[in-house]
Amino acid sequence: MEIAKPYLLFLGDVHDQLAAKTAQGIVDWRRDWCVGQLRLEGCKADTGLPDKTIAEAAKAGAKTLVVGVVNAGGVLAPHWIDSIVAAIEAGMDVATGLHTRLGDTPKIAAAAKKHGAKLFDVRHPTQTFPTGKGNLRSGKRLLMVGTDCSVGKKYTALAMEKGMRDRGFDADFRATGQTGIFISGRGVAVDAVVADFIAGAAEWLTPDADPMHWDVVEGQGSLFHPSFAGVTLGLLHGAQPDAFIVCHEPTRRTMRGVDTPIPSIGEVIDLTIALGKLTNPAITCVGLSVNTEHLGEDAAFSVLDRLSREYELPATDPVRFGVEPLVDAVAELYGEPEPKPKARSTARRAR
Amino acid sequence: MEIAKPYLLFLGDVHDQLAAKTAQGIVDWRRDWCVGQLRLEGCKADTGLPDKTIAEAAKAGAKTLVVGVVNAGGVLAPHWIDSIVAAIEAGMDVATGLHTRLGDTPKIAAAAKKHGAKLFDVRHPTQTFPTGKGNLRSGKRLLMVGTDCSVGKKYTALAMEKGMRDRGFDADFRATGQTGIFISGRGVAVDAVVADFIAGAAEWLTPDADPMHWDVVEGQGSLFHPSFAGVTLGLLHGAQPDAFIVCHEPTRRTMRGVDTPIPSIGEVIDLTIALGKLTNPAITCVGLSVNTEHLGEDAAFSVLDRLSREYELPATDPVRFGVEPLVDAVAELYGEPEPKPKARSTARRAR
Repeated sequence: MEIAKPYLLFLGDVHDQLAAKTAQGIVDWRRDWCVGQLRLEGCKADTGLPDKTIAEAAKAGAKTLVVGVVNAGGVLAPHWIDSIVAAIEAGMDVATGLHTRLGDTPKIAAAAKKHGAKLFDVRHPTQTFPTGKGNLRSGKRLLMVGTDCSVGKKYTALAMEKGMRDRGFDADFRATGQTGIFISGRGVAVDAVVADFIAGAAEWLTPDADPMHWDVVEGQGSLFHPSFAGVTLGLLHGAQPDAFIVCHEPTRRTMRGVDTPIPSIGEVIDLTIALGKLTNPAITCVGLSVNTEHLGEDAAFSVLDRLSREYELPATDPVRFGVEPLVDAVAELYGEPEPKPKARSTARRAR
Repeated sequence: MEIAKPYLLFLGDVHDQLAAKTAQGIVDWRRDWCVGQLRLEGCKADTGLPDKTIAEAAKAGAKTLVVGVVNAGGVLAPHWIDSIVAAIEAGMDVATGLHTRLGDTPKIAAAAKKHGAKLFDVRHPTQTFPTGKGNLRSGKRLLMVGTDCSVGKKYTALAMEKGMRDRGFDADFRATGQTGIFISGRGVAVDAVVADFIAGAAEWLTPDADPMHWDVVEGQGSLFHPSFAGVTLGLLHGAQPDAFIVCHEPTRRTMRGVDTPIPSIGEVIDLTIALGKLTNPAITCVGLSVNTEHLGEDAAFSVLDRLSREYELPATDPVRFGVEPLVDAVAELYGEPEPKPKARSTARRAR
């Protein structure tokens, strides 16, 4: 699955910015892939992109209409259908992360058939995957794991991809959830795969690669979350990471949606290593990504300092302070990227 | 999902007994639920049931035609369709564990619609489940866990249901795979559920119950299997067992279908407790079920004796030596069943 770029982001008429979280994530990380946003009357969300009609977007080269919003229940609002059909008629593919499948709406299915448009329901993987094999593959993998769901795994992974690329690493973000898929144009919604194939899907997502290539895997859930730990374990076994970063939100007390207490970072490190070594005996924690949005700057510094000393690992908040300490840790443990011919000649000149 | 009984077992024209494993399992455990078997010309399998035509089976009261065989690829053989349609026309529902959905064959779908027959594709759960909650429920649960897949979990669970009922326990087998579903008439194929809902499906399967009621849960895969451990963990968290039995095949060296070595029983006990205590802090291993089919009787005794002493737990092969030591262990740890009025009066007479 590869979603064609650039995108026109459809915001519908949702009533707040939170409902456009997916669209906002795409704009934050892939502004260049977006020709504009399409809003219906009454829409209260705004990603800051220029508003464009379907005709204008098509003229600007838009290849896919991305439904980057959710409404209550994750269903397709009936009054959005006309816009989707119009985009198809203008030559675009359509992609959504809604529970409703695009092709289940007869008007959309008919238009797609007539115009040869592709419909992407990223919450409904259509691929079939083999079951996981567990054999060690070539290339390197860095996985985000969490003390809970929704603690900043996706943000950290995207920031690591950018930070590692800036340092010269050959690194690719590997999306495991819907927003990440729109941001990278590909990936697999691991939590939507049939249970028997979780590890197999993760193996497919992170195939054999050059020895110094890094897959930076988004991650899902938490090994300590009673609803989703199975998904997290299947992903861990399939991704067979060499390295992992623990993502944490220090003010949370119970896990998202349940009464289970948040585990400690130490428990997460120990269990991730204990379970992850089944498919990669060299698995190592390289650092901590701490979401300090609910803390003042002094408190944030103090938490990072305390956690870094307690676990003897670099700790940062990627949003506030960047990921350099984590990129440093990867470079120190696994080697700096091999300088490319051009970079080498620059380095010589610099000397 | 509750499959109506009694069954007519359809064996098609499969070429060996192994292809009829599901049908044989039904006959072994639920002979009373079967009015007969239906075999096409060339069939090499035989469950020992009387051969019956569809008309004879309908007359004998058959409510469901169970396709109790698999052919290569798990697809529905085209020349089986007429028999299935005839069963529907004779008033039966149809159930299969094939990959192919019954309703995807137009002739079957049309016949089912016309006659109001139910079609059960047990490999394709149609129910939607909530995500797991992780809250402790009332009643007791006994889960089978394995050092590998296919080590005798289903057999052990069914033998435990029978052994516990014979002792007076209020115990119900809870099926997590297709053969188990046919044997109990209900259940959920946990490995076929969408990944996000594994734990939720297991919670649904083992709901709140009387304090002395036991759910005996079939189990799936192994926490150490690189293909399926996610399913096993989701089931463990959702089933929140009070007690578990480790199922083991002592001659196996690598796990089924992969190159990963078999873990030790001790590793399985420790990891099951470490992970299972998230949703049931009191989780306890009550014994070992050892599949000794590849050993002579002396060797089998010796293995059971050695393992029992090594782990200080009762160890038995349910097929060879029964499950009494395991039922004893449950009774000792959790209390004997409360005597029913009738049983008590019998006991008085016996004294």
